Amino acid sequence: MSETARVEAFSDGVFAIAITLLVLEIRVPEPEAAARAGGLVRALAALWPSYLGYLISFVTIGIMWANHHAIYQYIRRSDRYFLLINVVFLMCIAFIPFPTAVLAAYLPVTEGRQAAVAYYSATYVATALAYNALWWYGAWGRRLLGHDADPVAVRTISRRYLVGPAAYGVSLALAFVNVWASLAVHGVLAAFYLLPERRSGAM
Amino acid sequence: MSETARVEAFSDGVFAIAITLLVLEIRVPEPEAAARAGGLVRALAALWPSYLGYLISFVTIGIMWANHHAIYQYIRRSDRYFLLINVVFLMCIAFIPFPTAVLAAYLPVTEGRQAAVAYYSATYVATALAYNALWWYGAWGRRLLGHDADPVAVRTISRRYLVGPAAYGVSLALAFVNVWASLAVHGVLAAFYLLPERRSGAM
Amino acid sequence: MSETARVEAFSDGVFAIAITLLVLEIRVPEPEAAARAGGLVRALAALWPSYLGYLISFVTIGIMWANHHAIYQYIRRSDRYFLLINVVFLMCIAFIPFPTAVLAAYLPVTEGRQAAVAYYSATYVATALAYNALWWYGAWGRRLLGHDADPVAVRTISRRYLVGPAAYGVSLALAFVNVWASLAVHGVLAAFYLLPERRSGAM
Amino acid sequence: MSETARVEAFSDGVFAIAITLLVLEIRVPEPEAAARAGGLVRALAALWPSYLGYLISFVTIGIMWANHHAIYQYIRRSDRYFLLINVVFLMCIAFIPFPTAVLAAYLPVTEGRQAAVAYYSATYVATALAYNALWWYGAWGRRLLGHDADPVAVRTISRRYLVGPAAYGVSLALAFVNVWASLAVHGVLAAFYLLPERRSGAM
Repeated sequence: MSETARVEAFSDGVFAIAITLLVLEIRVPEPEAAARAGGLVRALAALWPSYLGYLISFVTIGIMWANHHAIYQYIRRSDRYFLLINVVFLMCIAFIPFPTAVLAAYLPVTEGRQAAVAYYSATYVATALAYNALWWYGAWGRRLLGHDADPVAVRTISRRYLVGPAAYGVSLALAFVNVWASLAVHGVLAAFYLLPERRSGAM
Repeated sequence: MSETARVEAFSDGVFAIAITLLVLEIRVPEPEAAARAGGLVRALAALWPSYLGYLISFVTIGIMWANHHAIYQYIRRSDRYFLLINVVFLMCIAFIPFPTAVLAAYLPVTEGRQAAVAYYSATYVATALAYNALWWYGAWGRRLLGHDADPVAVRTISRRYLVGPAAYGVSLALAFVNVWASLAVHGVLAAFYLLPERRSGAM
Repeated sequence: MSETARVEAFSDGVFAIAITLLVLEIRVPEPEAAARAGGLVRALAALWPSYLGYLISFVTIGIMWANHHAIYQYIRRSDRYFLLINVVFLMCIAFIPFPTAVLAAYLPVTEGRQAAVAYYSATYVATALAYNALWWYGAWGRRLLGHDADPVAVRTISRRYLVGPAAYGVSLALAFVNVWASLAVHGVLAAFYLLPERRSGAM
Repeated sequence: MSETARVEAFSDGVFAIAITLLVLEIRVPEPEAAARAGGLVRALAALWPSYLGYLISFVTIGIMWANHHAIYQYIRRSDRYFLLINVVFLMCIAFIPFPTAVLAAYLPVTEGRQAAVAYYSATYVATALAYNALWWYGAWGRRLLGHDADPVAVRTISRRYLVGPAAYGVSLALAFVNVWASLAVHGVLAAFYLLPERRSGAM
């Protein structure tokens, strides 16, 4: 197995585990709490912030997994610094279940809502920055690119990836104005990354 | 590694993690609760709803894993929409430990039982719909099928898969009549999918 | 990827996850409980039943993983019933963190100790039976064996595997006489399976 | 798949799961606790011991994963004792989330801090010893080395790996003098292992 193949397989494992651990942060309502809420149906409906967090985080991690793979379609070699940046990036990905749980717990709480959404968006800013660092480190001066990497596609990707930190930064700033607008940015970003890339053919 | 191979490996990871996380939802009885229940033996026996949920969910996820693989015996290409539907499908699979825990917690509780079984069945309706969406998207007009995909086998599979949402829909409706009948449908469906497929040779 | 390769990879995933989830059952002592126990050092030392459970379960799952692989050195084909037995076997493996947690919680509790050890051993009886069912189903009449499977090695393995259910059965019976003798059987069994197999060369 | 490839894949799985489980040990502050702390922002900031533990453990497991891979660039065969040592090593790796959680819980607690840091460092001493046992068992007399393993590189690696238990031993001793100095050793060690190896080219 080539060096990058093994790093990719390890990273895929972390992605798959982080995305599946998200469900553990949804707590079964206690029978007493369900009774207080007016029955289990209402108690399950009251978990909507958990469902929302699960939905956004799952789709976003899924997209990041797909894009992480796109990087490895161009990058064919590896070095210690690339591996280190990859570890930092994975550290962000594996962290996502925690801010998701914070979001789910505090979205219905008036005083904590803003902080929770800001914390959630800040995690994605960090993740997007780590992701860009990974790409730029490998692509800069074609350091770790394969010989067949199309320069135009590389430039398109470089531009596209910068959208991430910028947009999540907007989402972070919006958290202090309107939390729902902040969360909406996450949805729009997901849609943006699901659109096919022009001129690259990457997934 | 081909594109579909990597998606398949990632999906397998999510299946393997979700199926193994099921056990985390079974809680060790507290010594005080065990004493109240008349000893640890009785307290462990009183966990039968957890065992039942573990059994049904484990076997069902196992079958869905096998069938998911069957899809990839026919589908050889991938595109962004296929990947997106696959993410939605995995989001359902990774969610299953939660309704399983709800089922285990509320099956012995008279007022919550019906809602818990309905919630559990509704999750499978959604999972089966996502699964069908995945297959139909890929098979429609032979969009992502391999050139060697036998049209008769494809048609057989298409028909067989429609059984899933219909049967889980029946299970959902039955939850409001008799929860045990509703759960029995899950057992019958498992048996149905374990039968060899006619004319297709798929697993 | 061949059919058995994929089943093997999925099974490996379940093994790796179950073995790693064991640690989640060890609970950090609460500061108040640590103070009551006479400091954190004593509170951490008082977790010895958790460490013991972790040790036995980790080594045993590790050995079962190695032996599960040995099966696939001989078995080259697969069918639905083989897959079904494999799912039941994995259901036992993935369940092990729960009886391990029960063991750790009740080993220091006089009234629950016997039931906890019996429950723990009973899980291994079930696991060993499922494992034998898997092997015998595939080896019976050479149903799923490769053409090159050495009949002498196959017979040796068949005999060796029968030791498992018998020895864990002894461990289960001993739980009602002396829990420490019962746990000692687990250690002896681990040592037995770590010895090289005569005439087969399998791991 | 060769024998070592499968062991490597299984080990990678355990690494990926253990590293991703670290996040589960970070607990969402309860709304009441957040209110007492003066708001969610402060409550999240008060989790800095959890973040610190997450950071150190994540990077260290990541480095150990990379170095574990380096071993398998030289070792090409396997035997039962090598597998057994590998299981013991993985048992240490999979255990790390627990001392990390202990560290995070007791770093702010005056009486427990020293014990928590010592416990954390002791885990790494054990892990580094198991890692050295794995390497020395395979490299001793070139027992399991490939024919092409460069003797100079092997000797360099042997020397480098001895640094681990020694340095973590220093960290353990320092825990009884100054916990922050003890934790700093972990950071220095991470930096040391991130430096390229002279003469070997291994990752």
